[in-house]
Amino acid sequence: MRDVSIIGIGQTQVGEHWDISLRHLALEAIKSAAKEANVDRADGLFVGNMLAGELSGQGNLGALIADFVGLRGVEAITIEAASASGAAAVRQAYLAVAGGLMDIALVVGVEKLSDVVGSAAITAQATATDSDYEAVHGVTPLAVAAMMMRRYMHEYDTALADFAAFSINAHLNAGTNPYAMFHNKLTVQSFVKAPMVADPINLFDAAAPADGAAAIVLVPSEWAKSRGDGSAANGAARVRIAASAAATDALGLAERRDPLWLSAAEASAHRAYEQAGMAAKDVHFAELHDAATVLAALSLEACGFAERGGGVNFAKGGGIIRDGKTPISTLGGLKGRGDPGGATGVYQIVEAVQQLRGQAGPNQIANARIGLAQSLGANGATAVTHILVRD
Amino acid sequence: MRDVSIIGIGQTQVGEHWDISLRHLALEAIKSAAKEANVDRADGLFVGNMLAGELSGQGNLGALIADFVGLRGVEAITIEAASASGAAAVRQAYLAVAGGLMDIALVVGVEKLSDVVGSAAITAQATATDSDYEAVHGVTPLAVAAMMMRRYMHEYDTALADFAAFSINAHLNAGTNPYAMFHNKLTVQSFVKAPMVADPINLFDAAAPADGAAAIVLVPSEWAKSRGDGSAANGAARVRIAASAAATDALGLAERRDPLWLSAAEASAHRAYEQAGMAAKDVHFAELHDAATVLAALSLEACGFAERGGGVNFAKGGGIIRDGKTPISTLGGLKGRGDPGGATGVYQIVEAVQQLRGQAGPNQIANARIGLAQSLGANGATAVTHILVRD
Repeated sequence: MRDVSIIGIGQTQVGEHWDISLRHLALEAIKSAAKEANVDRADGLFVGNMLAGELSGQGNLGALIADFVGLRGVEAITIEAASASGAAAVRQAYLAVAGGLMDIALVVGVEKLSDVVGSAAITAQATATDSDYEAVHGVTPLAVAAMMMRRYMHEYDTALADFAAFSINAHLNAGTNPYAMFHNKLTVQSFVKAPMVADPINLFDAAAPADGAAAIVLVPSEWAKSRGDGSAANGAARVRIAASAAATDALGLAERRDPLWLSAAEASAHRAYEQAGMAAKDVHFAELHDAATVLAALSLEACGFAERGGGVNFAKGGGIIRDGKTPISTLGGLKGRGDPGGATGVYQIVEAVQQLRGQAGPNQIANARIGLAQSLGANGATAVTHILVRD
Repeated sequence: MRDVSIIGIGQTQVGEHWDISLRHLALEAIKSAAKEANVDRADGLFVGNMLAGELSGQGNLGALIADFVGLRGVEAITIEAASASGAAAVRQAYLAVAGGLMDIALVVGVEKLSDVVGSAAITAQATATDSDYEAVHGVTPLAVAAMMMRRYMHEYDTALADFAAFSINAHLNAGTNPYAMFHNKLTVQSFVKAPMVADPINLFDAAAPADGAAAIVLVPSEWAKSRGDGSAANGAARVRIAASAAATDALGLAERRDPLWLSAAEASAHRAYEQAGMAAKDVHFAELHDAATVLAALSLEACGFAERGGGVNFAKGGGIIRDGKTPISTLGGLKGRGDPGGATGVYQIVEAVQQLRGQAGPNQIANARIGLAQSLGANGATAVTHILVRD
C-alpha cells in the first residue's frame, strides 16, 4: 500500500445555480483542482453523485464529465451512497491510488438539487430512505432525522434551543467562506423562532439542499514529494490521507439497534483512527455531516469527540467553535456552506485541505495539522471517514 | 498488485419478476455466490445498478443490500456507468482486492426494469444518453443504436437479414440456459419479419429489458489456492481475473470521432490484452454487449475478433457460434438471456466463469481456458473489459 496525497482542490460557489448545468459545475471544480495540481491527465475519474438521474435526467456522469472536461477516453464511473456519495468517491479513488493501480485519480462531487419544480427534489431525496418501509409512508430523510432529534430531546432532556449552537457556529463560519451559500448570522432567538420543517427540525436546523461541485486530485505521496511544481510551488503544504474507512448500518431507522447511536459512523471513525495510529483527542478539527443539528451531535458522539448523549452539551459549551476543543463545520459545514447532496463529501475534504494548508483565511484553525472528515448517507446508514494530515 | 480469483458465482433467473423485490433478487444471487465460495463475511460490497433510484424509488443500495443479506456494517456502495454498471462494480472490487485493501469483495449487479408502468422505464433508460443533446429530443439508447445500425448498413452494404446471425446464435444458446429469459429459437425469416422497435432495430434485434441479479465473490488468488474448501471442493477449477480495464468515449453519438468505431471498447480491450499478455486470437470465447446486433458487430471489431466493417460477416459466416472461431453470447448474451441493466455486466462474468469451470452444460465451449467479457454503457460511451482464465 502506498501513501496518498491530495495535490489539488477545486470548488464552485454553493447555492442555487439555475443558470449553470451539472456538467459546467463539474468542469469549474475540476479545472481549478487540475490547475492547482498542475496535471493535465488522470488515470481515472470518480464522480460522486446522488440524484442526477432523477433530477437532471442524466446518468452515466463518468463518461459525460470525462469528455466534457477534456479527458475523453479516461476510465470514469459514478459512485452513489446517498449523501455520502462524494466521500465514497474519494474513498474509491484512494483505493485505486493506494493499491498502486492508478497514479493520478481525479474525484468530483457534483449535484444540482435546486433546478427542479415542485416536490421533485424531496421525492428524489426520499430514495435515500428505505423505499418499502419508509418512503412509501411519506417519510423523507429529514423526517427521519426529526424522529432522531425528538428521541434525543426525550432521552437526554434537551430543548430545541440547546441545538442552536450548531447552526450558530456553522453560519458564523460560513459568513467568511466565499464559497458558502449563507452569510447571515444566527442567534439562539432566531434559531428557535425559525419556521418548522419537520417537527422538531426547523429551517435553521436543517442544511439547505443546494447545487455545487468540488474536486480533488489524488496521487502517491512519493510522487507528490518528488515534484517541484503544482501545489508545492504554490507554497501549500502537502496533505496526505492518513486514513480512509467506510461502514454501513441498517438503512431504515426502525431496523437499527439503537436509533440514537450512529454505529456506521463509529465503526468507520474507529477504523480510521486505527489506520492512522491516532485517537479522537489527536484530531485538531472535524468536518462532520451536519445535515441536521442532531446528526452533528450524534456524529460528535460516534467519533469520540463527546460522550454518548453529550454531543449537544459539548456544542453548547463551546467545544465546536474555532477555538474550541474540536472545531467543526469550520468553513460552514453542510448547514452554512449548503448541502449539494453527492458533492458534500468532497467539499468536506476540500475544506479540510484548506485548513491543513493554512489557506482557510479568517476561518483558519491555528496549528491545524490533523483533520477528520466524515460523511453520512441516509442519516447514518452509510458513513465514510477520512483523516487528513499535513506532512 | 495481487492476482485476484473468483471463487463464487450466483444468479437469478432473468425475466419479469413482478413478485420479487429488488432486495430479494440481490439476496438470492448473493446467497448462491457466498455459499459456493463458502464465505460468510466480506470486506466490501460493490453494487452495480443503473436505475433503482428512478424506477424503484430506492437509492443507497449498498447499505440496504448489505443489511438485507446479513452483512450489516460492511462497507458498501453503488456503482453506476449506465448498462456497464455491473462490470464497473466488478472492476472496483478487483481494484480493492488486487491493491491489497480488501481480502473478500462481494459484487452484486441487480436491476428491476419491468416492474413499472407506461413509458417510465424508457424515460429512465434515456438518462444513459446525453440529456441535453440527445434525450431532450426524445432519443433513447436504442434509438441511438438504431442510428448506428442504419449507418453500418449504409457504409458496409449490409442488409437487415445479415444481422440475424447474432440473434439466432443468442437465442439458440439461451434455449439451454435455465437462467435465460428466452427459450424460443429464431430464424432469418422470423428475424426480418419481427415488429419494428426503432427502425432498423426490430424486436428480435434488441435485447429485452429485464429483472435479475448476479453476484460474484473475489479473493486474492493465493488465498483461493490455499483453501481446501469452497469452489475448489466442488471440483470447480479456480478462475482468475487476468485483466481488468475500462475506458470512455463521448456520451453523445454525434460527438464521437467515428459513429461506427467503439473507441472505448477498443481501448479497454487492448489495455486488457496488454495486462494479460495476450491478443484477441488467444481468447476462446467472448461475452460481448449485444444489446442490439449492431453493438455485437462493432464490439467484435473493436476487440479485434473481426476486421473493421467485418463484424456482421464474421457472424454470418459462423464465427460466433459454439464451434466458431470466437463464440459469443455463449449462454444467450443480452439478447437471449435478457438484459437486466446494471446486472448485465455481472451476468457476463458469471457466465464466463461457468464456461471456464466447465459448468456450462449443453452450452459448454470445448477447452475454454481464456474468456473475455466486455460490457458497454450508453452504446459504447463506457466500456469495461475483463479477461478471465482457468488456472
